[in-house]
Amino acid sequence: MIHNDTIVALATPFGAGAIAVIRLSGKEAIVMADKQFKSVSGKQLSKQPTHTIHLGHIIDGDRTLDEVLVSVFKDPNSYTGENVVEISCHGSNYIQQEIIQLFLRKGCRMASAGEFTLRAFLNGKLDLSQAEAVADLIASDNEASHQIAMQQMRGGFSSEIAKLREELLNFASLIELELDFAEEDVEFADRTQFKDLIDRIMLVLKRLIDSFAVGNVIKNGIPVAIVGEPNVGKSTLLNALLNEERAIVSDIAGTTRDTIEDEISIGGIGFRFIDTAGIRDTKDVVESIGIKRTFEKIEQAQVVIYLFDAESIFAHKSSVEAISVEIEKIKNQYPQKPLVVIANKIDAISEKELRELTMGIQDIKLLSAKTGKGVEALKNTLLSFVNTGALKNNDTIVTNTRHYDALLKALEEVSKVKDGLETGLSGDLLAIDIRQALYHFGEITGEISSDDLLGNIFANFCIGK
Amino acid sequence: MIHNDTIVALATPFGAGAIAVIRLSGKEAIVMADKQFKSVSGKQLSKQPTHTIHLGHIIDGDRTLDEVLVSVFKDPNSYTGENVVEISCHGSNYIQQEIIQLFLRKGCRMASAGEFTLRAFLNGKLDLSQAEAVADLIASDNEASHQIAMQQMRGGFSSEIAKLREELLNFASLIELELDFAEEDVEFADRTQFKDLIDRIMLVLKRLIDSFAVGNVIKNGIPVAIVGEPNVGKSTLLNALLNEERAIVSDIAGTTRDTIEDEISIGGIGFRFIDTAGIRDTKDVVESIGIKRTFEKIEQAQVVIYLFDAESIFAHKSSVEAISVEIEKIKNQYPQKPLVVIANKIDAISEKELRELTMGIQDIKLLSAKTGKGVEALKNTLLSFVNTGALKNNDTIVTNTRHYDALLKALEEVSKVKDGLETGLSGDLLAIDIRQALYHFGEITGEISSDDLLGNIFANFCIGK
Repeated sequence: MIHNDTIVALATPFGAGAIAVIRLSGKEAIVMADKQFKSVSGKQLSKQPTHTIHLGHIIDGDRTLDEVLVSVFKDPNSYTGENVVEISCHGSNYIQQEIIQLFLRKGCRMASAGEFTLRAFLNGKLDLSQAEAVADLIASDNEASHQIAMQQMRGGFSSEIAKLREELLNFASLIELELDFAEEDVEFADRTQFKDLIDRIMLVLKRLIDSFAVGNVIKNGIPVAIVGEPNVGKSTLLNALLNEERAIVSDIAGTTRDTIEDEISIGGIGFRFIDTAGIRDTKDVVESIGIKRTFEKIEQAQVVIYLFDAESIFAHKSSVEAISVEIEKIKNQYPQKPLVVIANKIDAISEKELRELTMGIQDIKLLSAKTGKGVEALKNTLLSFVNTGALKNNDTIVTNTRHYDALLKALEEVSKVKDGLETGLSGDLLAIDIRQALYHFGEITGEISSDDLLGNIFANFCIGK
Repeated sequence: MIHNDTIVALATPFGAGAIAVIRLSGKEAIVMADKQFKSVSGKQLSKQPTHTIHLGHIIDGDRTLDEVLVSVFKDPNSYTGENVVEISCHGSNYIQQEIIQLFLRKGCRMASAGEFTLRAFLNGKLDLSQAEAVADLIASDNEASHQIAMQQMRGGFSSEIAKLREELLNFASLIELELDFAEEDVEFADRTQFKDLIDRIMLVLKRLIDSFAVGNVIKNGIPVAIVGEPNVGKSTLLNALLNEERAIVSDIAGTTRDTIEDEISIGGIGFRFIDTAGIRDTKDVVESIGIKRTFEKIEQAQVVIYLFDAESIFAHKSSVEAISVEIEKIKNQYPQKPLVVIANKIDAISEKELRELTMGIQDIKLLSAKTGKGVEALKNTLLSFVNTGALKNNDTIVTNTRHYDALLKALEEVSKVKDGLETGLSGDLLAIDIRQALYHFGEITGEISSDDLLGNIFANFCIGK
């Protein structure tokens, strides 16, 4: 991998805004910026101290491209560990492109996805799992995934792995030392202590591996299928669930919810709602395709909400019996899947009708998306399906499939070591298994890495990071 | 207008990116940031020099929101002229919102559109026309509109107006002084010099007013109607026109062109292409509605391109005569509107057919959007419809309707002064007209402004600027 040239990219989101930031990194970054920058005070960037900001103009020959603020970061005190320049320009697409084009013409190279963070890793500013956490952090859209990514970026996960790796490495060295004295039949590595260590390592590995179930759910959101016919109030329900959490969002972006298929953060956990058409019995071929699709979507979901309109039952458009039949159908098909049955629009029915409903349908939850009644209770019900214990304890949670795979492999190798110890396996064979386990630990933090692996990891980043 | 509080807003475009910048401005901005910022080196922001950058974490009680870089700008050396803090955080929507919410909870107010620039104006960092140029600069999407906005932002227009205003003000003072000595019948203001000045002012005003025709076209793009049936190659033509200019754009944003209704920059000038369905004669009612729409769109356009597929003519799907009839129809309807007739796909016909085409249709332009032949010539043809003289001379060009209106009113008042001078109008009446002219000059640069006017101007800005 070549990483001696100077790379450039837009670091802020594409589009028009008040300002945009263009980032340069590389040995020549400051010198290159100096040639295209005319400071208001006549100062040269390369003579300025690190972490300082300078007002001036980006010039291309006689042409002034923009009035900008330029931030200077000097090797090694920068994100990448190289010389870095950040140009804060006016946020028009045109200006962004013109400035980037200018630097490309002057010898910079367009950064590939994640290349700034790759350089930070290669220059030892971050280990590999920390670098991966940067992408997770940018992708995080709720409190839980944000917390996990922050913890990983700050090295919580890496340091746990690194500590185990170091202890294991000590024993590996001792056992390998024994091999040099093989004819003298000595044991430098205390087998009892070693067994203890292996047990400890296996305990930690198992906990980390188990945490992936939670981590995966938190990272990707919990899929919830909403089964219900049109007009039973699916969008109203989602808006009610979203209500308090999105007040600021809409202030900033002016977003409105038109679709039911969306992710909503409840209590800091992302829930992905999947809209289905309901499963009303019918002879109609087109609609039976709809039922098939509904079941497919339930299949993908981790929790199922069955939502119906209480008002329409008592307006004789449906009946308690018809609803019960549908609920049974879902229960029979998916006996293991958590099902939440909700009667919506209870604000529109009488006390007597309400009693009829609660008597006729087991475990029914009453809701009025319109008045907000029952919304808090539903939130708590949904959260009860997530094991947030680890999250609350601030435990390390594995969210990354690559780490999960490496942990599984490490556990396999460590188990072999344990078996070997118990069956009195010879030191040279033990050493091989230990080295394998160490290899998988190293994969996580990046002590062991290949260009292919790095390419795969950083390709998932956005350009400019 | 209250502007003593501390405002906060996202300064970069909404969306996920590598980084996002959140801006705080106000007397308390640095103190407020200090309370939520834990510097890596333990430094306090308020004790740091202006224009410095600090690494640390944004914290909310025990919770760490993000690792950030904080830039400190101290009153008056900032964009707004107040204390300013820019927080460069990881570019996830979630983090952006969390940080903004945190500062809102801690007493910041969400900035309204353009409020940072409004404060810059109120604190004397920019005059009003410069402030308006900031919005134009952000909106600029081609070289010409960018150049004009840059010139205006750097004060080219304001300084021209300000110089005239000052000279006029001198004479106004002298004439008003005469009024104090009315009984002595003295003339402090040399009437010949004054006439010269008025002539000069009128010349400048007329030039600026005339420049608005060009300025308006450059700011909003030149509307070009493309008349042509589906599959004659409209999208291919637009892609060919766009080709070299968008190479970088697509590198950055991965944009692709699916629609024909779009703006393309040619030679630095924006052309807005308007797709029409063609005007083929038909008895079909639906299609005759189409023809009506086509004519409506031609009405809006400043230039009309008539595009047809040369290949299909010789495949007998159409004929030279049929095409000529349509062209005549457009010419008869809009005799004043520039019409460019283009035969596309000439790569697919023979030499003999080519001759038949050029003989049969007057002023025909031959094009192969596929091979690129004729594309350069078409660009030059389109540019010939724009008077780019003023642009090339770097003359001041008025693009803003508000300025245009003020200039028209100023010219009207200055004309009255000229008439008054010629008819020997008394000094007190002259003075009134001069004051009116000065008023309109002042409107442009903001010496004269009202809260309503400012509200209108800055409401068109984006939030965060």
